[in-house]
Amino acid sequence: MHPQRWGDPGAATTLDESARALVDLAFGLTETPAVSGATPPVTRLPEELLAGLRGIVGEEHVLTDDDTRALRTRGKSTPDLLKARAGDLADAPDAVVRPRTPAEVERLLAFAVEHHVAVVPFGGGTSVTGGLAAQRDGYAGLVSLDLVRMKRLLAVDPVSMTATLEPGLRGPEAEALLAEQGLTLGHFPQSFEFATIGGFAATRSSGQSSAGYGRFDSLVVGLTAATPTGTVTLGTAPANAAGPDLRQLLLGSEGAFGVITAVTVRVRRTPAVKRYDGWRWPSFEAGADAMRTLAQAGLLPTVLRLSDEAETAINLADPDGIGSESSTGCLMIVGHEGTAELVEARRAAVAGVLEGLGGTCVGEEAGQKWAHGRFAAPYLRDALLDVGVLVETLETATFWSNRERLYAGVKQALESSLEGAMVLCHISHVYETGCSLYFTVAAKEAADPLAQWQAAKAAASDAMVAAGATITHHHAVGTDHKPWFAEEIGPVGVRVLRAVKAELDPTGVLNPGVLIP
Amino acid sequence: MHPQRWGDPGAATTLDESARALVDLAFGLTETPAVSGATPPVTRLPEELLAGLRGIVGEEHVLTDDDTRALRTRGKSTPDLLKARAGDLADAPDAVVRPRTPAEVERLLAFAVEHHVAVVPFGGGTSVTGGLAAQRDGYAGLVSLDLVRMKRLLAVDPVSMTATLEPGLRGPEAEALLAEQGLTLGHFPQSFEFATIGGFAATRSSGQSSAGYGRFDSLVVGLTAATPTGTVTLGTAPANAAGPDLRQLLLGSEGAFGVITAVTVRVRRTPAVKRYDGWRWPSFEAGADAMRTLAQAGLLPTVLRLSDEAETAINLADPDGIGSESSTGCLMIVGHEGTAELVEARRAAVAGVLEGLGGTCVGEEAGQKWAHGRFAAPYLRDALLDVGVLVETLETATFWSNRERLYAGVKQALESSLEGAMVLCHISHVYETGCSLYFTVAAKEAADPLAQWQAAKAAASDAMVAAGATITHHHAVGTDHKPWFAEEIGPVGVRVLRAVKAELDPTGVLNPGVLIP
Repeated sequence: MHPQRWGDPGAATTLDESARALVDLAFGLTETPAVSGATPPVTRLPEELLAGLRGIVGEEHVLTDDDTRALRTRGKSTPDLLKARAGDLADAPDAVVRPRTPAEVERLLAFAVEHHVAVVPFGGGTSVTGGLAAQRDGYAGLVSLDLVRMKRLLAVDPVSMTATLEPGLRGPEAEALLAEQGLTLGHFPQSFEFATIGGFAATRSSGQSSAGYGRFDSLVVGLTAATPTGTVTLGTAPANAAGPDLRQLLLGSEGAFGVITAVTVRVRRTPAVKRYDGWRWPSFEAGADAMRTLAQAGLLPTVLRLSDEAETAINLADPDGIGSESSTGCLMIVGHEGTAELVEARRAAVAGVLEGLGGTCVGEEAGQKWAHGRFAAPYLRDALLDVGVLVETLETATFWSNRERLYAGVKQALESSLEGAMVLCHISHVYETGCSLYFTVAAKEAADPLAQWQAAKAAASDAMVAAGATITHHHAVGTDHKPWFAEEIGPVGVRVLRAVKAELDPTGVLNPGVLIP
Repeated sequence: MHPQRWGDPGAATTLDESARALVDLAFGLTETPAVSGATPPVTRLPEELLAGLRGIVGEEHVLTDDDTRALRTRGKSTPDLLKARAGDLADAPDAVVRPRTPAEVERLLAFAVEHHVAVVPFGGGTSVTGGLAAQRDGYAGLVSLDLVRMKRLLAVDPVSMTATLEPGLRGPEAEALLAEQGLTLGHFPQSFEFATIGGFAATRSSGQSSAGYGRFDSLVVGLTAATPTGTVTLGTAPANAAGPDLRQLLLGSEGAFGVITAVTVRVRRTPAVKRYDGWRWPSFEAGADAMRTLAQAGLLPTVLRLSDEAETAINLADPDGIGSESSTGCLMIVGHEGTAELVEARRAAVAGVLEGLGGTCVGEEAGQKWAHGRFAAPYLRDALLDVGVLVETLETATFWSNRERLYAGVKQALESSLEGAMVLCHISHVYETGCSLYFTVAAKEAADPLAQWQAAKAAASDAMVAAGATITHHHAVGTDHKPWFAEEIGPVGVRVLRAVKAELDPTGVLNPGVLIP
């Protein structure tokens, strides 16, 4: 991962000429290069504590060099990138510590408690909500607990169709291990290439194929977490009535309650066929109604997403198409995966419904284009930041009857806050009772782009709460969403989280300042 | 509800001659009538506290008469019935209080805290795990908080396909209100006729059609609960990543964290067609493997259950059939509900799989017979207790690869503990990764049938824990399952529950002794 950009440094991109022309037309081009040569602050951890950490994980797995620490500084939200691009590495950890076993994680937590060292569990570093920017004031230091060495496929149960994975496996690594046995997890968030199994669990991630495979929390049947006050293993059955489902309390706990050291997930057979079709709708509303019809008829495909008119017109994956016939109306991607027979049967059933509702199938090309570019958007953001265009995404979810109000409210808030902004939206996830809305917003950078974005983000978040929607469908709470999260769960909900935190992490060494309002 | 038997006193049954002959053959007949004329202990609540309660809910809704209190004494496990039949009403509440609004519930809880009165939330009174037998020592008295007056359908959202229901609605009442709008909840546990919406939520109930409609916890998209320290409303979207899903902490909280005052559930259109078929399998294993195949192929019907050889032979709903051809092998019920078109399509797809795996469709008669008698078994238990035969059910769940071990372990434990016992089993609920096992056990009553059953129950529960399975798939924890529940969630899980309890109910007035180990 690049310290100032998304993803693989080798995959960094710049705008081609046609894209530059378009961006110039919309926002103007202001070359805004990232500051180079910044270094993180000198490590604050005294030698005796570093020695203690080395005693737990071994000499070579306690890293304090600048490059390593720079790479573990914050996540990949646009504010994170703006800070990194400006050379601000103030949030760098004092050390990066890489345990290999759950026992080492337990010993690290005990050590952190004993010496009051803050611990930030680190998977892929892809948080876009400030989930990796822990408070350090009042602590002896801050350690990034990097799970990069915990990458094993611990067990496969081919009868129950479950697999037990270590938390440090990145999406492609987990898929590759499962593929050797003809299996797939089917979890493909946009962060797939870098994010990890532990991160998916800790943030209740949802992927682009979750309509078919299920949200990550619904894939988890068991997990083990090491907390500062003991280790817990949950998951005796697919479902039970043995009190509240405590698995659901650790899922989404964002490293604030414990470090997830193993996750047992439902797996499926590798699909023989993947078929992604584009469908065109006369309006966002018509397409959304069709999605609702599919969900409520029990006919959800594997992938289902719908861009609004603006996002369809400005298809970021295909700037050449802007203004062409393919940029009118609203584009829906409908993907089916499975055996050839199943895909054909389901595809036909879905097509029958969609045609009846006024949709037009535009074939596989649009679907393939989407599938091909599905993980590319974050690279484009960097290229736009390079020319002074602020780009960020945010997302929410609500019940179907509230969708239009939420859409209008958030769009209006962003457009009011960011002069000349371009606001794009798609429905990214669909349920029987509602859906998520995923917004992409672009605007010319102001003199203080961080303050500019923070104001817009606050306005959008206020609009979500005003509409009675959630502050986050799949990006998690981190530090950025905390004020609105507190409103969403109310004072009783906040007290419950604080009580659980106090019980499991009484000295507050785990990811301080993250999640808990 | 009858104070010493299951259900509607008018529906009480006795064994007919052929059944008597069979029972005589198996266990002998020992007429064991229930003691009549027992009365609960005199109410311990002083007049000033009763007056305070009357001030909250009104004179006529604070009941202290013996009959009303007898009817709110414990639940309907066989131990509960044995105690009631023996005239033991020691656990009767001191008063039954019937609020009509959430505000009254809140005031009752505040009053209970102020005067240290124990409060047992009461829905249908159908608990079979001691969920209504709260500890009273150390309290000024014990009040049954009867939700019988909170029976409204508060809202229907036909676009989002959700309905908001008050907790006191019994299964048939909720279905009747929804049916007026062409909707169904589709939740049909064996307790359906008496159990309530609030109880379904508080115990994470699962119904006989849950393969198609989903477990109750998966139907809930929102809820409101009054706790002694404040009211919480959760559910801003079908799903989110806003921290842990706190809905799942109140679902299954068994009245120990708060009183659920409203539940918003996913609803479906009333099915036009219900078609239940019987299928015959050469063995329990062959049938179970077929269930697993259906679940893992995404082909689950609405109803799917499979009796083992013993339960198929001793089909309690059809004693006349014993020894006939229909009593050999293993009977599976496969039910489909929906539009005529959908039912036919799904039925054909499922039949194709089942035939390919060696199943034989035996037609609708067996399915209809099951559907007709689906809520009758608890009445039969009373008739058997009348002739000195102890009958009880217990249930568990595990992953598919562990099914045979769990089945053998629990069966062996019951047969070893109960001399001459008849142990029947069916797979009652099916998931992609596993299933539940529902055991029915009958044995001749010993001199102390309560102790006799408690020993057998402990042996069976030990076997579940030894097999790594859950102590309860859908009956909840109550008081009876607490020791094994504590093993299942481990010391960290226990501490989390205690911490949440201490936060929400610091003086411990809610359902004391229930759920929390």
